[in-house]
Amino acid sequence: MNRNIYISNTPLEDALKLWSAALEARGCLAPLPPEAIPVDDSLGRVTAEAVFAPRSSPFYNAAAMDGIAVSFASAAGASEAAPVRLREGDEYVCVNTGRPIPDGFDAVIMIEDVHRAGPGVVEIIEPVTPWKHIRPIGEDIVATELILPEGHLIRPIDVGAMLATGLTRVSVRRIPKALVIPTGDELVQPGEPVSPGNIVEFNGRVLAGYLREWGVEAARSEIVRDDTQLLEAAISRAVSGFDIVITNAGASAGTKDNTASVIAALGEVIVHGVNIKPGKPVVLGIVGGRPVIGLPGYPVSAVLTMRLFARGLAYAMRGLPEPRQETASAMLARPVSSKMGVNEFIRVKLGCVGENLMATPSGRGAGAVMSLVQADGILVVPAGSEGIGAGEKVTVELLRGIDEIENTIVAIGSHDNALDALANFLHVWRDVPRGLPRGGSTTRLSSAHVGSMGGILAIKRGEAHMAGTHLLDEETGEYNIAFIKRFLPDTPLLLVNLVYRTQGLLVPKGNPKGIRGFEDLARPDVTFINRQRGAGTRLLTDMYLKKLGIAPESVRGYDREEYTHMTVASAVASGSADCGLAILAAARALGLDFIPVAGERYDLIIPKAYADDAKIRALLSVIRENREFRETVERMGGYDMRDCGRVMYEQ
Amino acid sequence: MNRNIYISNTPLEDALKLWSAALEARGCLAPLPPEAIPVDDSLGRVTAEAVFAPRSSPFYNAAAMDGIAVSFASAAGASEAAPVRLREGDEYVCVNTGRPIPDGFDAVIMIEDVHRAGPGVVEIIEPVTPWKHIRPIGEDIVATELILPEGHLIRPIDVGAMLATGLTRVSVRRIPKALVIPTGDELVQPGEPVSPGNIVEFNGRVLAGYLREWGVEAARSEIVRDDTQLLEAAISRAVSGFDIVITNAGASAGTKDNTASVIAALGEVIVHGVNIKPGKPVVLGIVGGRPVIGLPGYPVSAVLTMRLFARGLAYAMRGLPEPRQETASAMLARPVSSKMGVNEFIRVKLGCVGENLMATPSGRGAGAVMSLVQADGILVVPAGSEGIGAGEKVTVELLRGIDEIENTIVAIGSHDNALDALANFLHVWRDVPRGLPRGGSTTRLSSAHVGSMGGILAIKRGEAHMAGTHLLDEETGEYNIAFIKRFLPDTPLLLVNLVYRTQGLLVPKGNPKGIRGFEDLARPDVTFINRQRGAGTRLLTDMYLKKLGIAPESVRGYDREEYTHMTVASAVASGSADCGLAILAAARALGLDFIPVAGERYDLIIPKAYADDAKIRALLSVIRENREFRETVERMGGYDMRDCGRVMYEQ
Repeated sequence: MNRNIYISNTPLEDALKLWSAALEARGCLAPLPPEAIPVDDSLGRVTAEAVFAPRSSPFYNAAAMDGIAVSFASAAGASEAAPVRLREGDEYVCVNTGRPIPDGFDAVIMIEDVHRAGPGVVEIIEPVTPWKHIRPIGEDIVATELILPEGHLIRPIDVGAMLATGLTRVSVRRIPKALVIPTGDELVQPGEPVSPGNIVEFNGRVLAGYLREWGVEAARSEIVRDDTQLLEAAISRAVSGFDIVITNAGASAGTKDNTASVIAALGEVIVHGVNIKPGKPVVLGIVGGRPVIGLPGYPVSAVLTMRLFARGLAYAMRGLPEPRQETASAMLARPVSSKMGVNEFIRVKLGCVGENLMATPSGRGAGAVMSLVQADGILVVPAGSEGIGAGEKVTVELLRGIDEIENTIVAIGSHDNALDALANFLHVWRDVPRGLPRGGSTTRLSSAHVGSMGGILAIKRGEAHMAGTHLLDEETGEYNIAFIKRFLPDTPLLLVNLVYRTQGLLVPKGNPKGIRGFEDLARPDVTFINRQRGAGTRLLTDMYLKKLGIAPESVRGYDREEYTHMTVASAVASGSADCGLAILAAARALGLDFIPVAGERYDLIIPKAYADDAKIRALLSVIRENREFRETVERMGGYDMRDCGRVMYEQ
Repeated sequence: MNRNIYISNTPLEDALKLWSAALEARGCLAPLPPEAIPVDDSLGRVTAEAVFAPRSSPFYNAAAMDGIAVSFASAAGASEAAPVRLREGDEYVCVNTGRPIPDGFDAVIMIEDVHRAGPGVVEIIEPVTPWKHIRPIGEDIVATELILPEGHLIRPIDVGAMLATGLTRVSVRRIPKALVIPTGDELVQPGEPVSPGNIVEFNGRVLAGYLREWGVEAARSEIVRDDTQLLEAAISRAVSGFDIVITNAGASAGTKDNTASVIAALGEVIVHGVNIKPGKPVVLGIVGGRPVIGLPGYPVSAVLTMRLFARGLAYAMRGLPEPRQETASAMLARPVSSKMGVNEFIRVKLGCVGENLMATPSGRGAGAVMSLVQADGILVVPAGSEGIGAGEKVTVELLRGIDEIENTIVAIGSHDNALDALANFLHVWRDVPRGLPRGGSTTRLSSAHVGSMGGILAIKRGEAHMAGTHLLDEETGEYNIAFIKRFLPDTPLLLVNLVYRTQGLLVPKGNPKGIRGFEDLARPDVTFINRQRGAGTRLLTDMYLKKLGIAPESVRGYDREEYTHMTVASAVASGSADCGLAILAAARALGLDFIPVAGERYDLIIPKAYADDAKIRALLSVIRENREFRETVERMGGYDMRDCGRVMYEQ
């Protein structure tokens, strides 16, 4: 258990300053050297010097209209009363737009204003001013004038302007080259067989992808195993051919975390350890005059730290200022706590609910790549704060376009697999007129799984457009309505059915422990996997245990909580639990056996304030009218769609 | 003079509807067929179907921390008073983050909480909860769950999520292929010799560039000469291999404008002629089931019409909604008039002056590629409007990022070549700390040349951060101050000198007409080129003519006005005028002879409200401290920089 204990906790601001100063001192923040390339290949490149026009545009006096070129003097005094006749050849010539004005002529009359008066003779009934409808030499740009300044990102129209003035080559900054070095004994390449302990090498691809988005030519090396000498060799080779070197992982303080010591041996470690979460163990170093960044292994940590310490560097090398991250002001839906002295980067989901853009903190696990796939933004809790309260205004860095966020339905509440199917149908629904009217986006459904009661409370707080709920009122035997009357008495809303479904105990294929029902949960050889408090399924569990007189303490695993039907199913499939309560669709998905316990109704609470919103109307259309959606859900198993889309209750 | 007279004037909205319906009817708006590609190549592609996880992530129960794996039962009851000792092997094993949890263990204790009590023995002083610091199977995603919906643009993190769950191939939409066909006898390829009447083929490059930005694989064909049969052959070939065909130009009604008739012969013309300006003669057609768009020849018209009629199509083929054009709300600085019944697209410059984002209409010439290079946005004047008044709020489609616009100094007033040099220095100035602090942009200087008086009025109306001015008060012989006192009496401001410069008469090399001074402007064989009203140089001209008793009417060319020193120089260089009044730098740039007339002072008016703005401070630093800037201006000729940056007057 040898550990590198010298990992520091440098404040983020200091780390950025130290890093910036070290890079500056070694010239790493200067734009890369120029290279001359054909203008035809220059789209997206950055000018290395100011570009001046070698030739005027236009470079000859050109007709700006289809018509006839004349001498303005010859048409002087023309009027309807006293038309002037001109002869073709010496008094006028026909010109098309763009053609040169022949010598001796100094105005163009539009074809629409020219009247034929015979073969080769026209009549003019208005005088013409000199240089009318002529684009004089240099009208657009005069030779020697500036076309583009230095440090300009070349757009399609800029390519046109350069070519128009006769340029064929342009001096641009060389594109920065980066090498991403994946390290670790546990890594296997995609497609190779895996066994427990293996991790597919995907981080390298993700990191190279972001570098490409920042305009860097990013390559990936072979996987380097956890061996100091191999890593030394890889980094030494890399710094001779690349402008930026990224390693991942090995930055931390574990027994195999060699990055910092290797960088120290080959060059200099500027910072090792920053007070950020996630991402603390990042290593910032210089080897052979080139920046070498050792990123932590967890994907979320790696992506966030690379954004912090490599993005500005990439743009500086290109000769561009780092673009500001797009941000939005949002209201925090749930409080977040954070450790004092740590800059915490929290993934959030965003949705426009009513007047507010609501930000709901999502998963904080650094290993969860899906949490970053699903995140809409990043909220930074500064080091000086212990957290942020619900309802406070926060600034969120956007990970998606605001368009897409505005077209997102925020669903908070109970989870059902039919919601996932619905999300996919909404996203592509063919019956939504696509057409060409500009702008717009398909509808996104963003679900947070906090249980039925959590959903009702989210509606109460105005955080969600809808909430999935399946709460059985024991007294009336009715679903959801009693809870709405109690917790949302003043909210005008629709209760719309989505599905009837079957809950049951999930057990491994063949039911090795012979579980027949809830009564077996008290057995000492049976481990249960539970759902979180507030989940309708949890309430169902508690109701059955109470009926049977089984004390929760006597159920092994009662304390272990999962948040979705699928994670319950996964625990049973992997053998870490013997059974759990969930819907049939989850059992089917993972090939488990299913012991039916109860049928129940799963409804959507939709406040009337949002019922006319285009997004919600799209959703209602899908569940009411889309046959393919129904068939898809029915195929998942255990669903009855007879009331799908029907309003079960209204207030 | 055969002309195609059937060009229509279809309202834009109808044109979009007709086009959309025609495309829809032929399936051209459906996403292109899917193709399976390696996940490694899928960045930026669009999913053709929903992507589900084939394997859970993690797919084994994994340590979430470096530490020891234990059975939670074995550490039950541990406390400082009653520590529990565990033996390596059967009671604990060491695990690094990410390693699998061996059978029989169900919790991880962080290394920081483990105390060595001897070789192979550790001591625990706190109990541990089951599954603590373990990432259970499927924590991130459970096998069979949705990773990405259909129609999703794949980002780097999405690539990671797919690989993490064991996917190696993904079904994505084929990339649309477009062919741009440049047509015209006048076209020459870049680098080929040109003579009057030739145009470098740059439009094709510009159009292909925009198509690429919309995610289309865009190719360019050889130039097709103005010949019906050649064009027919080119379009027929193109529609068999490409999803979208674009021709440019030949859309109009001139003698050589064949596009519409060729499309009609090969397929169907849906619309020919739309009530937009510029871009009216656009042809929208279908040949062999493929969209064929005939764009007008002028670059600005071509770009704007392609945006209107091909952008949504490109995105629809990719399986994506067309992204909304980024817009901003701005205040119109100057009124624009527009023809009733025409949707006019007006290029504007934008700048944040004080509280307002000001939009200043710039050039309207459809041929002016530089006007589009310099434009910051597009203002649409709807067909139902005859114009928009100054000071009205308008919505502008942005052509640059709002970052860049916020970092733009708006200079309105007199033109001097030193301003162009200044623009380039500001854009790259090396002394501005670049570093890594995130966000930000270098400073842009956007100059509108409306003359000294125009500049003073722009300051008065709050439209500009600064105004260049060189107005001589005949009574006092002093520059600018009298005019400031008269027109800006209540505006606290700084008057900062930029240069002293020499104005003179520009004549062709060798002065063939023997011009000696203003007295020669009355000669019948001398053609003058004038500056616009309100320009300081125009006032100087009028002063000299008055002094010499020369009536403006007797000066040939007095009515022909140009807006900059360089366009005056260009008129003389091209022989369309014999002389004009301008600065020495303009004569030098185009190799003209120069007859000095007067020295004058050129100052910048800077309202104090903006003097502390970072942009203006950057500008003052450059003109006061940057030696390279001074040298560059002095090399241009005729400049005296002795007071450059000095405050000449303050109020």
